[in-house]
Amino acid sequence: MSFREVLAADAALIEVRLALALAGMADQPVVHAMRYAVSGGKRLRGFLVLEGARMHGLTTEAALSAAAAVEALHAYSLVHDDLPSMDDDDLRRGQPTVHVKWDEATAILAGDALQTLAFELMCAPALGPAEVRVALVAGLAKASGAEGMVLGQALDIAAETAPAPLTLAQITELQAGKTGALIRFSAEAGAILAGADPAPLRAYATALGLAFQIADDILDVEGDAAAVGKRVGKDADAGKATFVSLLGLEGAKARATALIDEAEAALTPYGAAAETLKEAARFVIARRN
Amino acid sequence: MSFREVLAADAALIEVRLALALAGMADQPVVHAMRYAVSGGKRLRGFLVLEGARMHGLTTEAALSAAAAVEALHAYSLVHDDLPSMDDDDLRRGQPTVHVKWDEATAILAGDALQTLAFELMCAPALGPAEVRVALVAGLAKASGAEGMVLGQALDIAAETAPAPLTLAQITELQAGKTGALIRFSAEAGAILAGADPAPLRAYATALGLAFQIADDILDVEGDAAAVGKRVGKDADAGKATFVSLLGLEGAKARATALIDEAEAALTPYGAAAETLKEAARFVIARRN
Repeated sequence: MSFREVLAADAALIEVRLALALAGMADQPVVHAMRYAVSGGKRLRGFLVLEGARMHGLTTEAALSAAAAVEALHAYSLVHDDLPSMDDDDLRRGQPTVHVKWDEATAILAGDALQTLAFELMCAPALGPAEVRVALVAGLAKASGAEGMVLGQALDIAAETAPAPLTLAQITELQAGKTGALIRFSAEAGAILAGADPAPLRAYATALGLAFQIADDILDVEGDAAAVGKRVGKDADAGKATFVSLLGLEGAKARATALIDEAEAALTPYGAAAETLKEAARFVIARRN
Repeated sequence: MSFREVLAADAALIEVRLALALAGMADQPVVHAMRYAVSGGKRLRGFLVLEGARMHGLTTEAALSAAAAVEALHAYSLVHDDLPSMDDDDLRRGQPTVHVKWDEATAILAGDALQTLAFELMCAPALGPAEVRVALVAGLAKASGAEGMVLGQALDIAAETAPAPLTLAQITELQAGKTGALIRFSAEAGAILAGADPAPLRAYATALGLAFQIADDILDVEGDAAAVGKRVGKDADAGKATFVSLLGLEGAKARATALIDEAEAALTPYGAAAETLKEAARFVIARRN
């Protein structure tokens, strides 16, 4: 199967796992909003969990709850990032954002409950021995809290009112938290599940995460809203420093390509078993949305 | 030691454990806001964890990270509940709320990161075998997500725009989620830590949690803002149904007293070892703030 076929198959399974986790909950707007928020998306982070697990000889089923967990966590972060007091976005994946479709209170609560759900999913017995599940919970917490994703988002918001645009070092630090930390943890999760050394996957995902953000900045300049599914040109309009404003469009593309080479090289210890993850890395900088 | 002395000593230890968890984090407003949000408060939930553990022969140290975890979770819920789109409170424990002292984005992010921190604290090796820590993480998730605390808060917000005031059954369901679920889990945590049957503590905390909410509603009518540390008379002004509006002031007091008797009776299996928890129950309805 090609990477795109694997990604689509994994996305369908993750969708089912999330639907199962949300089944039987109260018939309330907050629960409807949770279901809405976790539907759709590429499921790249969930795919990284599943492919990392398979590369270590585990079945997809043995890692599925962990893949659903990182996608629930990711969905929560998007719902909160889109809020009026944060990035103030009204469109996500081509659809109205949660606070537009419902209201702010429902969006805050749905995001809160999706974060909780992520940790609950990491406790699923199917993920193996308790030691493994505790390591997954701790790893997810480290990646998503005030030393990871939340810190990155806070730095991003602070940058909007900073006296000077951020430097390349500052943008890189910001990205390492905001989008990098969860991508890195997602890739490592397969090794954690298998009790293997996560170092090669961490190196792969560190380069991949940075390339992913650079590609996002390029899309914000080159993409059109219909294909991207959200407003574009926003960063430039806001006068925000991005990898494109700091490196130039061609410089940013060259940097993203070099990072993908780096990501692929990090997978050398896995030999041919890493082919799908290498394809995933190339996809990240080739995507149009 | 009297209950008040135990509560004060436990609060001091929890304060230290939370400070330790937040030490070394980035020097950023979101982290300052997290420290601000977790400081102060009675630490009743943390006390329940610690006393429940001691009643099962465990040391305070063996349960301290779990007590800090429930207090971090509680602090997150207060920060988010106080937001303008939620309960819109500008005063908490006699101090400006987080979104007033900083801004909404910082309050949302600080709350998000405090929830994450709660789950991270539950993974602390000091809490014992991995099986115990997974059970604590799963229990905390169940109590705080869309089947517990978040559901209760969502029902509370929905009640504000409901065509008719809530019934006693609806208020009781709302409370069982909004404040009851975390109080229940806090009391059960000691039994989980010790590998003991949590049923008596669950029965105790179910009655205690409801009495606690009724006492809150009484305080909203009888208290003065200076002593309570937050705005009072708010529910009546908003025409919201409360235990006082549904049962009358005397009826609410009688119900709270009956629930405390019920809570004490549930602890019979523990004999004299439960004296401090019984005192805690009586304190809940006698408090002035």
